[in-house]
Amino acid sequence: MKLATLPEGGPDGRLILVSADGERWLPANGVAATLQAALEAWSRSEAALRRLGERLEAGRGEPLEGVVLASPLPRAWQWLDGSAFASHGALMQTAFKLPPIETTLPLMYQGMSHQFLGPSDDVPLPSEADGIDFEGEFGVITDAVPMGVSVREARDHIKLVVLINDWSLRVLAPVEMKTGFGWVQAKPACSMGPLAVTPDALGAAWRDCRVHLDLLVDWNGKRFGAANGGAMAFGFDELIAHAARTRTLPAGTIIGSGTVSNNNFREVGSSCIAERRGLEILDFGEAKTAFMRFGERVRMEARLPGGQSVFGAIDQAVVSAHSHSGIHPPGR
Amino acid sequence: MKLATLPEGGPDGRLILVSADGERWLPANGVAATLQAALEAWSRSEAALRRLGERLEAGRGEPLEGVVLASPLPRAWQWLDGSAFASHGALMQTAFKLPPIETTLPLMYQGMSHQFLGPSDDVPLPSEADGIDFEGEFGVITDAVPMGVSVREARDHIKLVVLINDWSLRVLAPVEMKTGFGWVQAKPACSMGPLAVTPDALGAAWRDCRVHLDLLVDWNGKRFGAANGGAMAFGFDELIAHAARTRTLPAGTIIGSGTVSNNNFREVGSSCIAERRGLEILDFGEAKTAFMRFGERVRMEARLPGGQSVFGAIDQAVVSAHSHSGIHPPGR
Repeated sequence: MKLATLPEGGPDGRLILVSADGERWLPANGVAATLQAALEAWSRSEAALRRLGERLEAGRGEPLEGVVLASPLPRAWQWLDGSAFASHGALMQTAFKLPPIETTLPLMYQGMSHQFLGPSDDVPLPSEADGIDFEGEFGVITDAVPMGVSVREARDHIKLVVLINDWSLRVLAPVEMKTGFGWVQAKPACSMGPLAVTPDALGAAWRDCRVHLDLLVDWNGKRFGAANGGAMAFGFDELIAHAARTRTLPAGTIIGSGTVSNNNFREVGSSCIAERRGLEILDFGEAKTAFMRFGERVRMEARLPGGQSVFGAIDQAVVSAHSHSGIHPPGR
Repeated sequence: MKLATLPEGGPDGRLILVSADGERWLPANGVAATLQAALEAWSRSEAALRRLGERLEAGRGEPLEGVVLASPLPRAWQWLDGSAFASHGALMQTAFKLPPIETTLPLMYQGMSHQFLGPSDDVPLPSEADGIDFEGEFGVITDAVPMGVSVREARDHIKLVVLINDWSLRVLAPVEMKTGFGWVQAKPACSMGPLAVTPDALGAAWRDCRVHLDLLVDWNGKRFGAANGGAMAFGFDELIAHAARTRTLPAGTIIGSGTVSNNNFREVGSSCIAERRGLEILDFGEAKTAFMRFGERVRMEARLPGGQSVFGAIDQAVVSAHSHSGIHPPGR
């Protein structure tokens, strides 16, 4: 089952159901007005949405082509992003001479969740000098999770799988990381792919609570990376149990995989510019690839073995927040 | 003006107005159903609430005594906690032999915000072995703040001032801090004092965007600390500008001061157990004061020069999450 959100009707948008082939849609307002509302009553709403889906598969609904979609969750009560790909951390540490992170637990930070940009929204940022980078990730959305949930139980709380671009500002990130407090300025609003899908929509590509698909990243129309999501050192079930050790997770909590990265990054490429720059430092002694400039675009998607773009595509440009309506220039 | 929230009518509770002397209340539902809704339209709702307040000051309303209150914001879209008291950081670093934090910027992390416990709620936590500690703080609540707001502009976005207990798990905190990703497990749900007050309700105690009042902390009925909130190295205006450097802040964003701490902590005491333990390590070579046990209580309040408890009191006990309804035992 595939769900999406129209950017209308309020800050949480309006929930729609999308056909398995991604071609048509029906409003879901008979079941739930918003995805957040559906997740808060998932044990009831899932069955009702699946019944509605039968009408879509029978040929009903409107064409999706040309419809502008919001993030499936335009805002969420909680966004906890992991960093579960060991090859990403290892490359960053070697290239940038960072001290090794000494932990056997999953790495995780809490990011801003009151705004997730839609898949084709412009991304307003204050300055190119901050080192604008994309980070392609997979993520899951949970229903309400009790404090102290086990890894085994956590699996059943994974209701939807999504594609995320965790925008990062690389000049600011190491400064904040050194404090030990995590990132605030280095992590502006993320973007989300248009379709939130139930794990069964991934078929055999969903196993061990991981997305075994290549995350296809194109930067200004050129393939930049195609790393596989199956290489997570911790599955999403383990990330959820880690997150819920001392807190409840509300329905609609989003858990991220961290930048998708594989050991053979020299062949498959990367899901963020920082990794390529790290590789250049190792190979040439200096980074040659610049971070993003205003006006540049990034596209992300993941295709099933049959070729279908399962989450739809993120395809968007970064723009200056100064020229973006309603946003003041930065300053102290 | 003083606002509070009854724990009824939905997850955001029901907004009430409390008289200046804290003795009586009136429902605010003619203006806004919830504090979140009031903050989202503050330019309109403030004036209407102040008009309602005139009726309270004329003697209308019900007695507040005995009324159980929720957190003024039972949940919020964003909670960004600073660490603005230099004496706290310096003591922690010296006592626990932590490397100095090299930054001239405010320290800040994003904490969980989907649940703020009420001032008399039990605090369910999974294990005494995690090192249960309170952290007394002041905080402010903003309306919507644009990205890149200046320090000067930030001041005008401070709409309410609150009292916060930022519960911390001290065994988990250094492990997470070392990763650079900030805290997830070490920072469970915070508690908030019952009254959210406009800055003018603090009179001369509100200046330089700081709360110049002693934060009175009693642990199991015994005075533990009375540190003054005026000693912040950065004012709340500076913390807001720091927070909004690369993101918008939604209405209802809560910004915390960090543990209130003064240079003369030997005289005034501390707002968290970790500071006292740090002092004991310096003086005796080892910490003597144990962290909290289940069943123990902490009380926090701040009194105006005339003696009035301006935010009301946080007064609550920590309990085992295992015996608390609806929360599973922790485990993997």
